Amino acid sequence: MLNTLSSRVAAPTRRYSLQFKSYLSSSNNNNIMKLLYPTSLKLDVKSLEGFAPSLHPYDVKAPIPEDLVDAEILVSWTNSAENLADAARRMKNLRWIQSLAAGPNDILAAGFPAHVLVTTGSGLHDRTVAEHALGLLLTAARRFDQMREFQLRREWPAHLGGAQPDRPADRFTTLRDANVLVWGYGNIARTLAPHLAALGARVRGVARSAGVRDGVEVFAEDRLPELLPTTDALVMILPGSESTTDALNRERLALLPAHAWVVNVGRGVSIDEEALADALEEGRLGGAALDVFKKEPLPKESRLWGAPNLLVSPHAAGGRPQGAEELIAYNLRRFLAGQELKNLV
Amino acid sequence: MLNTLSSRVAAPTRRYSLQFKSYLSSSNNNNIMKLLYPTSLKLDVKSLEGFAPSLHPYDVKAPIPEDLVDAEILVSWTNSAENLADAARRMKNLRWIQSLAAGPNDILAAGFPAHVLVTTGSGLHDRTVAEHALGLLLTAARRFDQMREFQLRREWPAHLGGAQPDRPADRFTTLRDANVLVWGYGNIARTLAPHLAALGARVRGVARSAGVRDGVEVFAEDRLPELLPTTDALVMILPGSESTTDALNRERLALLPAHAWVVNVGRGVSIDEEALADALEEGRLGGAALDVFKKEPLPKESRLWGAPNLLVSPHAAGGRPQGAEELIAYNLRRFLAGQELKNLV
Repeated sequence: MLNTLSSRVAAPTRRYSLQFKSYLSSSNNNNIMKLLYPTSLKLDVKSLEGFAPSLHPYDVKAPIPEDLVDAEILVSWTNSAENLADAARRMKNLRWIQSLAAGPNDILAAGFPAHVLVTTGSGLHDRTVAEHALGLLLTAARRFDQMREFQLRREWPAHLGGAQPDRPADRFTTLRDANVLVWGYGNIARTLAPHLAALGARVRGVARSAGVRDGVEVFAEDRLPELLPTTDALVMILPGSESTTDALNRERLALLPAHAWVVNVGRGVSIDEEALADALEEGRLGGAALDVFKKEPLPKESRLWGAPNLLVSPHAAGGRPQGAEELIAYNLRRFLAGQELKNLV
Repeated sequence: MLNTLSSRVAAPTRRYSLQFKSYLSSSNNNNIMKLLYPTSLKLDVKSLEGFAPSLHPYDVKAPIPEDLVDAEILVSWTNSAENLADAARRMKNLRWIQSLAAGPNDILAAGFPAHVLVTTGSGLHDRTVAEHALGLLLTAARRFDQMREFQLRREWPAHLGGAQPDRPADRFTTLRDANVLVWGYGNIARTLAPHLAALGARVRGVARSAGVRDGVEVFAEDRLPELLPTTDALVMILPGSESTTDALNRERLALLPAHAWVVNVGRGVSIDEEALADALEEGRLGGAALDVFKKEPLPKESRLWGAPNLLVSPHAAGGRPQGAEELIAYNLRRFLAGQELKNLV
């Protein structure tokens, strides 16, 4: 959910200014600019009034209606691939797509011309994804999954209740004094970390660039061989890209302690699922709570369904943009003023 | 887990000073005082050295050995009822029991003479119970229980993933902007509340005495009729006593919104379980995540096992005293100095 594409930001920004100026001079100023907003979520459209463009709702699962196909601005949220491909073909005046998703993958895959600006909804999912990640970590520590299985058999899971050893070395049972490593240290990680620290965890981060962020030490990826062996819970929040594919591979999984848990709320591509299933089946890993998968919905035949101590969460961490109107309004103002856009891909 | 017995504190404290002085003058000073500590948890016994009493381990599930039966001080943790009844009969020199449990119920039920001082482990379970309560709240909000059930059938719970309505009025889906009412506002509640507030919840409390605690408004129980109808999640942390029995009764359950969840990490007696099961079966309550029950283990025939949206946690919230040595040492010092003890019942 991080913007891996930050290296691409500088160029489009320069390009943007030039194009925007040429657009302003070439466009027919008698026509009112159109902004299409999705009906796939509840937006406070009134809060977007007062800007030059007229505001038009559209169905994200259907072709763009003929009378809206000349729009300059498209706000996207859970659009179908067909809708986006249709928009890419037919929206000849399109200048800017504001996605509300954390990442740009669906937009980039749709075949829009290179001059169309794309901005993501990075930041709109920080709190929801952080809450989900925290919930998965606590489910792993407290084994609410096992409790549920026992309950379905009307059995009392006595091994999980009553007097317990305090922070046993061979199990992940609490966030207190646990070493939590967050791989992919962007907005979501920064939102999550204070909750973990407040519960007593020692939080460390991994990102492409090292440094201290809000008091959390963030290491470069080349330090993983030192970090993974002292990790009780690894939280993956990597974006989906070629460079993150199988980031958690067989070799790195082998570096985690046998009691460690892996939580993935980033993108499914970042874990070698076969290597993960092997590690779980061979008891070389404490468990894994995954919200994302290489293929979603997880196919019936996937080994992951039945891998021991693996929890399947159905890409449920985000899915509810928070503060979409503020981001749209902020970027719309800047777009109309010819200024650099936030979250530009 | 609150000390409901605070009204009893004043009297025993006065009694204590008198008795301690009479004990010091009457006891045989040639004998070294004995402190018995339980082997049912890992204690850093070295940290208790340097005080006058000699330190002796004992088995909390067996009768007190003959050579230790003259001990003056007993530290208890998960003692069997038989062990405590035996100790009450045979330990004639006993002056003080330091329990490591949050409440004194097991000690009070064992029949120790009235002159034996009892101090609880109140405070030793704040962080563990708060962590569990937070985990249960997030499990309820994110429906990790349903996800587990779907996974066991190798089914993708699509209704819980992907694009979701943001904070729908008819469901409890997030702590963000949720109204959380914590009934029983002692140490555990005060430990839990900042975590809830950090996740965006609006926290209110209920206790016998109203007031503002750490910035949280705490109401007296007579305000429940106003508070319950605007509650999204009710966290019960009441101690076990006659006065708290069926505190959450049929009438009060009926005041909760149909989407509200109940989480109980206090004592099982505080909920009318039949009324709760009725409310769940009739769809008048969102759900309940219970860590404590009137009878534990929950009997096979209990309706609660199969009540819709009810999660059974096997008294797993605490069970791991944190900082027991510090409390024992603190109270031991005060005991030897004839000063008032902490957590005196």
